[in-house]
Amino acid sequence: MLNELSFAEAATAIERGDITSEQLTRACLDRVEARDGDVKAWAFIDPELALAQARACDVADERKGLLHGVPFGVKDIIATHDMPTGMGSPIYEGHRPGYDAACVALLRAAGAVILGKTVTVEFAGMAPPPTANPHNLACTPGGSSSGSGAAVADFMVPAAFGTQTAGSIHRPAAHCGVIGYKPTFDTFSIHGVWPAAQSLDTLGLLTRGIDDVELISAALLGRPLRRERAPVTSPRIAICKTHLWDIVKPETEEAIQIAKEVLSARGAAVVELILPESFDELVSARDIISSYERARATAHEWYNHRDLLSPQLQKAVAKGFAWDYEEYAHAIKVGADRRHDLDLLFNAFDAIIAPCTAGEAPPDRNSTGDHTHIGMWNLLHAPSYALPTYRGPNNMPVAIQLIGRHGEDDALFDVAKWVLEQLVPA
Amino acid sequence: MLNELSFAEAATAIERGDITSEQLTRACLDRVEARDGDVKAWAFIDPELALAQARACDVADERKGLLHGVPFGVKDIIATHDMPTGMGSPIYEGHRPGYDAACVALLRAAGAVILGKTVTVEFAGMAPPPTANPHNLACTPGGSSSGSGAAVADFMVPAAFGTQTAGSIHRPAAHCGVIGYKPTFDTFSIHGVWPAAQSLDTLGLLTRGIDDVELISAALLGRPLRRERAPVTSPRIAICKTHLWDIVKPETEEAIQIAKEVLSARGAAVVELILPESFDELVSARDIISSYERARATAHEWYNHRDLLSPQLQKAVAKGFAWDYEEYAHAIKVGADRRHDLDLLFNAFDAIIAPCTAGEAPPDRNSTGDHTHIGMWNLLHAPSYALPTYRGPNNMPVAIQLIGRHGEDDALFDVAKWVLEQLVPA
Repeated sequence: MLNELSFAEAATAIERGDITSEQLTRACLDRVEARDGDVKAWAFIDPELALAQARACDVADERKGLLHGVPFGVKDIIATHDMPTGMGSPIYEGHRPGYDAACVALLRAAGAVILGKTVTVEFAGMAPPPTANPHNLACTPGGSSSGSGAAVADFMVPAAFGTQTAGSIHRPAAHCGVIGYKPTFDTFSIHGVWPAAQSLDTLGLLTRGIDDVELISAALLGRPLRRERAPVTSPRIAICKTHLWDIVKPETEEAIQIAKEVLSARGAAVVELILPESFDELVSARDIISSYERARATAHEWYNHRDLLSPQLQKAVAKGFAWDYEEYAHAIKVGADRRHDLDLLFNAFDAIIAPCTAGEAPPDRNSTGDHTHIGMWNLLHAPSYALPTYRGPNNMPVAIQLIGRHGEDDALFDVAKWVLEQLVPA
Repeated sequence: MLNELSFAEAATAIERGDITSEQLTRACLDRVEARDGDVKAWAFIDPELALAQARACDVADERKGLLHGVPFGVKDIIATHDMPTGMGSPIYEGHRPGYDAACVALLRAAGAVILGKTVTVEFAGMAPPPTANPHNLACTPGGSSSGSGAAVADFMVPAAFGTQTAGSIHRPAAHCGVIGYKPTFDTFSIHGVWPAAQSLDTLGLLTRGIDDVELISAALLGRPLRRERAPVTSPRIAICKTHLWDIVKPETEEAIQIAKEVLSARGAAVVELILPESFDELVSARDIISSYERARATAHEWYNHRDLLSPQLQKAVAKGFAWDYEEYAHAIKVGADRRHDLDLLFNAFDAIIAPCTAGEAPPDRNSTGDHTHIGMWNLLHAPSYALPTYRGPNNMPVAIQLIGRHGEDDALFDVAKWVLEQLVPA
């Protein structure tokens, strides 16, 4: 089935002339048609608009770029000039920003077909989305990039944008069983992405194949595909249980234990990392920063359309406006200081493996699950992956989190690819 | 004349009931009417819309907040729900974003009257704006916050927003002879502010009185006005000529020499700071970062409306897309490393005095002047002020730049106030 190709596989198949963009796009649209009544991954999709882009690729005299003809999903807090951008909020239903976010314009310039807008939790926050987990419709897909996680996992589109402020890329990636990539903070242009908390928001990717990350990143960063590098053979990997280990479920413990054993057996130099106690404060510091900044980012809606905000968001914004600035400033300093500490720790290893979500997706559609394990690392601005390497007691996906050194996204990609090859052989 | 009151003076006069918001707003509008045909500081102003806000303040049962009834100017790259936001570009002429930027919503919630939109250079870039310098119409007001600088200097509005990526707050402040305040990077919410380069863009203020900075900051940050602190008596001030000293004009040399002598005589512990040579690279690193990030932020306009971009911006965007990602990544690292170095240097003093612009506003309306002296510090993310302390050979304003430690905006405010008291006695 064409819609089951990974993004990179599809790009190659189109480049070779084995398939057309229109065939691939139709296969994705057929899957959406068949499944989205149940999964509800899409906030907006116009088949004719998608097919018109695909046909334009197929008749073009030359390839537009690295992503020529491959469909892509865009989280609905990201501006699109030809589709509404609703932010998951009734305040912005049918909103037309009048331009493409930078990331969308860059993807289009590289030839990608923007298939449609994927469901976001209201303002990338905490209210439950309409989306279901495609592996079990009674479970949450995670959030806030709920539609991106569900659509990619359910073979409706090969890849999609997500954004992460706490765990909004890795949580849906983990719960839906796809790869989540959160770059080093500020790597991709954030222009046109509606903010949640500006010192934490990071644009990233949800994909089914690890090579997709390298390909799409190259288009966004304007760089050639890296082809030459030394093969990874014995990466130095630190297993970090963190101070949150007692709220981890058995399936996540098992996923990490298996990773430790298998990677060690395949040549990795595995050590255990016990973080200094000063890192414990990261969870509360991130919560304060997110809360304080989100309240300000929501000032217009708070003062003009408060009754159209969900009860959850109203509560969060009220809390955010109540923080003392001094507490916020302290939390900012905690983040900066621990970033410096982490950078020094990284002299001793190439990547950290830590819990991602607590466990499988909860069988609860009124929650988007737990983000604590992901959020503490997100405040550190380090690049990270959610890698779905395991299945839990209910046969639902379980991911490990792989964290790299600030700015060293290329090196982390190589380790992530090696780790997946060992743990999830093709 | 009411329009000559500083922002803080006006807020106090309204609070005491000495004047009404409508009287003050009318005085500002009268000044705009009399002068803006020549100065061209405003991109949009609707007197009735401004007066309606003022009357709403005057009839309110209680004060809305710290800024109750005082007019404020908003740079026209900042979103307003009730006024167009044109970005200084024909592409967005009459554009209605549909919401208020966070900073505008927060000012409104604190009671400010949004008087209108001040002229911005096209996308806060480098093309010449229509605005003239109110001190000499043949001179540039500086850019890119050109209208904010000119309107505040010309007593059309007591204060206005500016944004700075290289020198876009401090250059118009210096050339127009008002105070520029650029906070530590990421201090004020940037939501709804059109980006130029995301890792450099900083929202700040142009005012005529130093106390205005503290007052408006309190409203934006949600904190009470600080009232208690130790008086500044003998601040430790480093004079830093920088490696760019040979492109400084005599009037800036004199402004700094006078500051050194006077502040020393009044009790400051003045030292000379010679930066390590590694700081020389800041100028080129900032240019690369700005160019690379701006190209990406302009991707939609570049691919869809290229002929509507100015020749200057077309050239800049083309250059930005041509940078190797590796060069950009290196420049990012230079900024981060020098930030760390500067923080250590700051153990030895409380503030740095450095050149701001090269000299007086050039008698040239086709340029917005030089930003090099400001830009190198802007990459360091440190808080800074442009303080107009001197007049040049043509009786035009000349400013010094006062730079503080990252995150220590409060301490820098106290020093800035003390410095102004010594150099520009009321």
